[in-house]
Amino acid sequence: MVKRLSEFSLIEKYFAPLSSSGAFGLKDDAALLQIPKNKTLVVTNDAIAEGVHFLKGTDPKRIAQKAIRTNLSDLAAKGATPFAFSLALGLPSDWDNDWIKAFSKGLKADCKAFGISLCGGDTFRVSPDKSGAVISITAYGHIDKKDYASRLGAKSGHALYVTGAIGDGVLGLTLATDKSNDKLQKPNAAQKYLIDRYEIPQPRIEMIKLVAKYASASMDISDGFVGDLEKLCSASHVAANINLMDIPISKQARAQLKTQKVTPIVAVTSLITGGDDYELLIVIPKSKVNSFETESKKLNFPITFLGNFKKENASFKGVNILGEDGEPIILAHRSYTHY
Amino acid sequence: MVKRLSEFSLIEKYFAPLSSSGAFGLKDDAALLQIPKNKTLVVTNDAIAEGVHFLKGTDPKRIAQKAIRTNLSDLAAKGATPFAFSLALGLPSDWDNDWIKAFSKGLKADCKAFGISLCGGDTFRVSPDKSGAVISITAYGHIDKKDYASRLGAKSGHALYVTGAIGDGVLGLTLATDKSNDKLQKPNAAQKYLIDRYEIPQPRIEMIKLVAKYASASMDISDGFVGDLEKLCSASHVAANINLMDIPISKQARAQLKTQKVTPIVAVTSLITGGDDYELLIVIPKSKVNSFETESKKLNFPITFLGNFKKENASFKGVNILGEDGEPIILAHRSYTHY
Repeated sequence: MVKRLSEFSLIEKYFAPLSSSGAFGLKDDAALLQIPKNKTLVVTNDAIAEGVHFLKGTDPKRIAQKAIRTNLSDLAAKGATPFAFSLALGLPSDWDNDWIKAFSKGLKADCKAFGISLCGGDTFRVSPDKSGAVISITAYGHIDKKDYASRLGAKSGHALYVTGAIGDGVLGLTLATDKSNDKLQKPNAAQKYLIDRYEIPQPRIEMIKLVAKYASASMDISDGFVGDLEKLCSASHVAANINLMDIPISKQARAQLKTQKVTPIVAVTSLITGGDDYELLIVIPKSKVNSFETESKKLNFPITFLGNFKKENASFKGVNILGEDGEPIILAHRSYTHY
Repeated sequence: MVKRLSEFSLIEKYFAPLSSSGAFGLKDDAALLQIPKNKTLVVTNDAIAEGVHFLKGTDPKRIAQKAIRTNLSDLAAKGATPFAFSLALGLPSDWDNDWIKAFSKGLKADCKAFGISLCGGDTFRVSPDKSGAVISITAYGHIDKKDYASRLGAKSGHALYVTGAIGDGVLGLTLATDKSNDKLQKPNAAQKYLIDRYEIPQPRIEMIKLVAKYASASMDISDGFVGDLEKLCSASHVAANINLMDIPISKQARAQLKTQKVTPIVAVTSLITGGDDYELLIVIPKSKVNSFETESKKLNFPITFLGNFKKENASFKGVNILGEDGEPIILAHRSYTHY
């Protein structure tokens, strides 16, 4: 028999211990949220659903962590320091107490890791038959208002950087799918790394302070490097030439690409147009480039310079990805699309 | 062929016009939310799902309104003035442009009606096959911190009031179900009223100022009068005797009950243990009862006094519903439960 706690017991046992002081132990209809003095509130909202953002059968602990981290990635991109979140949890039709227990473990681990607390939310059934889990999180951060890095502030001449490596997520998705279909029996260390990168993204909170201090624009990459950079270009009315070979690819991704029977160009272009990177595009005005690079090095965290933005005009909009010959590569698509 | 805008076009066309200044035309990953000086932020989050909170085939305009209003009802119960919301919209598998257009009309109507704006969110697919819409809204309000009415502040001797009428929602659900099954061909005026009450609840924003000014505790009734009042009693460690005949029932509900082949007691008890009322339970300390009643009368908005709380003890916890003979009525269940 499936064991299921009541809504009240479930909240009291698993969620209330994660709550903050203004949340009344999650016994109230709402919560009071105190913003530090002289700071402005930053809110963001990302939802993830089974079969779309994570595979059926994913460890519920990782589902919870992905739901939190996709949101923290957005806050990091703005230069905002996260402090709390609200959780709407649409339970899968086959949930039981073990599912909730594992899910709450993921919440707890990330509350601790990122210094955030749960300030309320809602639990509900999704719909009667065979539906998967749906998790919507609203995350709260704070910032000095003048430091907020939107997508709109990139200007001609500003330098573009990207954190970490691109393409691990989309490779991890393929591997995770193969694994859940029993096509991949024993993932090697590189493959495990890539699956982890897909299932539990690492929000680049290390960069929050530098984004706030130096960035004229910034965004996180969730739907693919090319498409997301084009969104930033469009919002800022700038354009960019990017050398394909400059885009950082992890050694694990390179190892995995070698096992695929496609040309190197096809392999690499699939990485820069897939989703689930959760790396940051960071735009720095020329005058601040030296300080930004110096301080980044001290963090010992990999960032890569990709070039300078140009003004957008009728014949040059968005992003050109240039091959080794300096000519634009024709891409079959630009990014992951939801529908 | 099903016509579907891209995610970008959909947001730009239907959602961006509803956004506020800190939301960057919904082109950014997050939004800056400015709280009025000397006020504290109140956040709440409610989600609604097809087949659980609304029926398949419901006008998408009404789905949007219900999603907003269940949240505003929570803010009203706290005495908080709503000003913005985030929207996570899980699109049903059969969505098309008309669906979105109607949905956005509901958002727009309620932004105007309640003076709120959209500050961001997420749109996504729910899951591949035959899934219904899932909408999670986080609503933001502000309040003088000292005025916040939690569920925890009711004390022995405090007076309990309820707004409007109880039971319209659960009757409306039955009628709406019959209508969608073609069992109800032509609803009469009372039946239409009850269906409306189920499909588009009226958050009691008229009462926000008085709740903030006078209430020691307050909550909205969404899962049933008895069960929700018991939650308030439990959070405040008080108990209540309520005369069944004191609980306000609308004339439309009374008319509908007469058509049912059940005893009056069964009929009325089904109303007080069903969900979807979105009325408020308001608790007023003795010393403020006169002022509260005087000011309520000026609003010309119906509230009903239901009695005074007692201290909770080992033999008297929660809520007794008393019949005309003064004896407790045994209820088959106390409220709507989600799972």
